[in-house]
Amino acid sequence: MTATEPSIHNNQLPVTQRTKIKRLPQRGDYDRDLIYSILDEGLICHVGFTVDRQPFVIPTAYGRVGDRLYIHGSPASRMLRTLQKGIDVCVTVTLLDGLVLARSAFHHSMNYRSVVIFGTATVVSDVEEKTEALKAFTNHVVPERWEQVRPVMHQEVAGTLVLSLPIQEASAKVRSGPPNDDEADYALPIWAGVLPLRMVAQTPIDDPKLSSGLSVPDAICHYQRGQSPD
Amino acid sequence: MTATEPSIHNNQLPVTQRTKIKRLPQRGDYDRDLIYSILDEGLICHVGFTVDRQPFVIPTAYGRVGDRLYIHGSPASRMLRTLQKGIDVCVTVTLLDGLVLARSAFHHSMNYRSVVIFGTATVVSDVEEKTEALKAFTNHVVPERWEQVRPVMHQEVAGTLVLSLPIQEASAKVRSGPPNDDEADYALPIWAGVLPLRMVAQTPIDDPKLSSGLSVPDAICHYQRGQSPD
Repeated sequence: MTATEPSIHNNQLPVTQRTKIKRLPQRGDYDRDLIYSILDEGLICHVGFTVDRQPFVIPTAYGRVGDRLYIHGSPASRMLRTLQKGIDVCVTVTLLDGLVLARSAFHHSMNYRSVVIFGTATVVSDVEEKTEALKAFTNHVVPERWEQVRPVMHQEVAGTLVLSLPIQEASAKVRSGPPNDDEADYALPIWAGVLPLRMVAQTPIDDPKLSSGLSVPDAICHYQRGQSPD
Repeated sequence: MTATEPSIHNNQLPVTQRTKIKRLPQRGDYDRDLIYSILDEGLICHVGFTVDRQPFVIPTAYGRVGDRLYIHGSPASRMLRTLQKGIDVCVTVTLLDGLVLARSAFHHSMNYRSVVIFGTATVVSDVEEKTEALKAFTNHVVPERWEQVRPVMHQEVAGTLVLSLPIQEASAKVRSGPPNDDEADYALPIWAGVLPLRMVAQTPIDDPKLSSGLSVPDAICHYQRGQSPD
């Protein structure tokens, strides 16, 4: 890091005991822009929390507004009821970019981009922030969907539990590129390389109860989720 | 459940305090075949464990042999070193099948199939079982890849830490089908339906160090991962 790169430097999250990447530290990254880009491309996060020493890992949707990650659900949800007590939480988002196929089984790997966030979640009670979070959930899934659907009703906002997690203690981990084989194996007559994977939208399916004459919006017709790097 | 369906009955995992689906129990399922099919289609699991009350959720590859799930890595891995102490673990695999786009933001959802496994992991020290697990990791990613690559070496087996988790206390959760809108909203002129998503393989990328004259194997050329139901 040189003095000519202040913006990059300022954009780094602090490394803490919890976020320090110990295994393969060269894959670790604390850059806020990278972390945000992974969070914005992902659709599902895995929320980890502990009850009486028992860890739970639950997949759920999420949204990001600035440096806050929001999750939501019914006030009856065990996960949300537990998290709102302010216990430690770990939220992980993983994007699978490809299969790394080496000449030996031992060096097989995957290309991926992941983010791990540690912290404690708080209940969002402010109606304006809560509505902003609900908008973020919706537009995280399909851009501008919030503006196209029936406006949210007061009791829907009231009936949804929204939790906010600061993106302060977080790290990214990235693997990309070809396999790393043992030197002696490169001469073997075995195909090796990367099989890139992408989450690809298929043809939209009309709701069977759709009113006639309604066509699929452009953002859904031409849906694309991120660009895998290789 | 009637007496005429013994095979289905026998195939159900027991429902425990930890695996009981409390929210939307109609989405829950304890059928072993369904659980296995989700595990076999997924490529990455999220492993949850707790150290000093702090939950960690780490993405990793896995393999299944019968009623055991295997994870592996370097003996230096913090996750594996922690888990081999026999602490409680929660392993979750999630397949995202589609975006459920309703007429209101409130009823937006996702179609998914997920499995949550609870238990404690044990170190696999038997060389034969360990080799079988390594084969499962490799062939889980690409069918018959194990048979095509350079045979595994003794020191590779010895240098890999493999943990085994019984698939005994596990549940699946599945959402499929169209959105469920408020009755009054069905008349609105808003497109609603499902946008199916699939993990799709792109064109394979040769390792830059690939020996000339090697072509991409069929299983990689025509790679397909599962079939999303809608």
